[in-house]
Amino acid sequence: MLVEFGDKTPKRHVVIVGAGFGGLACAKKLRRSPSFSVTLVDRNPYQLFSPLLYQVATASLPEDDIAFPVRTAYREVQFVRAEVTNVDMQNKTLSLQNGKSLAYDDLVLAVGSEGATFGIAGVAEHTLQMKSVQDAREIRRSLLRTYEDVEDEILPLENLNVVIVGGGPTGVELAGAISELQREIRREFEHIAPQASVTLLEAGPRLLPSFHPRSSNYANKTLRRMGVDVRVDAAVIEATPRSLRLKDGSEIVAGTRIWAAGVVAPPTWTFLGDTDRANRIKVDAHLRLNDSIWVVGDAASFGDKTGRTLPMIAPVAIQQGKHVARQLRRRESKQALEGFEYRDKGQMATIGRRKAVVEIRSWLRFQGSLAWLTWLALHLAYLSGGRNRTSIFADWVWNYIVWTPRRTITD
Amino acid sequence: MLVEFGDKTPKRHVVIVGAGFGGLACAKKLRRSPSFSVTLVDRNPYQLFSPLLYQVATASLPEDDIAFPVRTAYREVQFVRAEVTNVDMQNKTLSLQNGKSLAYDDLVLAVGSEGATFGIAGVAEHTLQMKSVQDAREIRRSLLRTYEDVEDEILPLENLNVVIVGGGPTGVELAGAISELQREIRREFEHIAPQASVTLLEAGPRLLPSFHPRSSNYANKTLRRMGVDVRVDAAVIEATPRSLRLKDGSEIVAGTRIWAAGVVAPPTWTFLGDTDRANRIKVDAHLRLNDSIWVVGDAASFGDKTGRTLPMIAPVAIQQGKHVARQLRRRESKQALEGFEYRDKGQMATIGRRKAVVEIRSWLRFQGSLAWLTWLALHLAYLSGGRNRTSIFADWVWNYIVWTPRRTITD
Repeated sequence: MLVEFGDKTPKRHVVIVGAGFGGLACAKKLRRSPSFSVTLVDRNPYQLFSPLLYQVATASLPEDDIAFPVRTAYREVQFVRAEVTNVDMQNKTLSLQNGKSLAYDDLVLAVGSEGATFGIAGVAEHTLQMKSVQDAREIRRSLLRTYEDVEDEILPLENLNVVIVGGGPTGVELAGAISELQREIRREFEHIAPQASVTLLEAGPRLLPSFHPRSSNYANKTLRRMGVDVRVDAAVIEATPRSLRLKDGSEIVAGTRIWAAGVVAPPTWTFLGDTDRANRIKVDAHLRLNDSIWVVGDAASFGDKTGRTLPMIAPVAIQQGKHVARQLRRRESKQALEGFEYRDKGQMATIGRRKAVVEIRSWLRFQGSLAWLTWLALHLAYLSGGRNRTSIFADWVWNYIVWTPRRTITD
Repeated sequence: MLVEFGDKTPKRHVVIVGAGFGGLACAKKLRRSPSFSVTLVDRNPYQLFSPLLYQVATASLPEDDIAFPVRTAYREVQFVRAEVTNVDMQNKTLSLQNGKSLAYDDLVLAVGSEGATFGIAGVAEHTLQMKSVQDAREIRRSLLRTYEDVEDEILPLENLNVVIVGGGPTGVELAGAISELQREIRREFEHIAPQASVTLLEAGPRLLPSFHPRSSNYANKTLRRMGVDVRVDAAVIEATPRSLRLKDGSEIVAGTRIWAAGVVAPPTWTFLGDTDRANRIKVDAHLRLNDSIWVVGDAASFGDKTGRTLPMIAPVAIQQGKHVARQLRRRESKQALEGFEYRDKGQMATIGRRKAVVEIRSWLRFQGSLAWLTWLALHLAYLSGGRNRTSIFADWVWNYIVWTPRRTITD
């Protein structure tokens, strides 16, 4: 479909599905090009800044602060709020859940990922996920309301226990933040609160498996010092309405059970082509599935030169989104396509107040306060939107320097 | 019941029902007295700063910012989260909804008010109230989601219309803020948004009836200039699922129908004694119903020397809460009780950005930017809690100076 916009030049219609890091990076680079008209489709009218989702889940930040409105983000980009239900590759048309359809010349799939349950019994029903604002809201409600219900003797004391599955950055950040929240809540529920515990389970041999072993070590020691019961080589085999059962036969009883054990691409899209074990669509060196469909971010399975499949993290998505925008423009000007190359800028995870790990190069790793300040600065820098940045900065000043009461509303 | 707290002195147990302006003012003044132990009961664990509720309803402030946690507010005060279902005056015992009971020596009722429907057909079912966080959340959702649903052709264009019933400060503030929100949303929904309208209905002859006619005039003119359709002498006789019907036979079709036409005390408490038309309990010169029950704030019907019954506003509640605390302490030290006297500190209402009316004395009234700055400063000063104050201040700097996107999440 060639869209005409008043002027004489026919524009190619690029439809980007997903307003996450990858989709927005692509839209941003394409929006001013005279050769394209860009439509962005997402089920939510906001970009979720998921690296800070754990702070919403632990009652530190208000949820709006990590939701950046996309309708007004780029004036040249048309936004459609919808869920995509099908792709007709023959006729280059998307079907939307609202019954409408959307024709494209080029399609960029930036559909992200969802929590991986690995088919373990009870996980979908009896654990809380950590992917959406609604998920974070559920966790926050569970964490806070349980204290009231235990005090009112509606729930038994053991419900104050929290268990988190998954020792990656999300699990580590949650465990640290929940431990700090529990300490803060002691002032409010003096009789029951000391009974609360946090357990962090990792199926593999160490926390932060993608980091250097020294960072793993630091995370483990730091969390233990904060009172978190860290267990490695602890594989979950079943979730029940009140506990998690482990492979070694033990059972952990907890009122709040959070599942952060990894992500997979949404299974909805696997019909499009070859996929890997994480439902990710295998793409060529340019990130293409075919001549008119590109895949970026968590939904793309892309092996770099060393044969390693790139991890499902925001920096990969951002670089891939930009890459696809560049290739679309090169193609328009009849230039040869370039292969995608990932520039690894390192990784980091926060553990608690003034405690983090940062790895920039194999020879440049650091931990503790400096790492934590680096984490703060980089997250502020990457937040889209001046308002959210200021608002979060103000909240952080209070949270970390002044230490004032947590956010309260739980219904 | 005389409670002993480890030490030898028996303390009188004061139970305060309601953690609003009146209840908290009373608790604050009593908490450090060696003669009393104080228990505060409320269905919510936070004080709602209702003067700013309209900013939550219009997507300016996050809801947590106007909810001040009471559990940690005063360490000496015991907090019980519960709904009170009955008072046994004989045995000086409250029944709570959770099945428990609570004995008191002195009871302070600070139970506030709720929206008054005046028995008008359909109001309870087909209009949105403006008293709780949940109410504000509903209004915000209705205001924002309607644009998406109209764009998706799920709802007709007329649903973008908003009608507000009640020309008091709440109605005026809402009308102004919604008009500003609608203007802001035009950037996001360019095709449909210009169709949106706001209508403000007042049954009496002028807006802000408790203010000087010049202030009413200013509010009316200012709102009209902002595009609000202001109608006075417009009495509603019925609310339907899509409209409001007026006494003059006309009908106003609107997707968002907000009821801010006045408040009454909760009918639950009228069995306790003589009440006025607004369900308020008639109290003596000291604010007592009997020797052990005191009533303050919106729930109390108190006539001052001139015979005028005091209005249901925060300053009255605060002064009455303090007064009761003072009388309880005087009685303990065998001093004679004092009568309550209200010191009128004036009133104010904001209309929009840089537009407000302030009346401090009959000879000291002003409007416009200076009034608006006075409004900002006084609201910040009255907010409990440093965190909320800072957070709101940061948000206001953005809202009023930088003008950035509204808050986004609507589900």
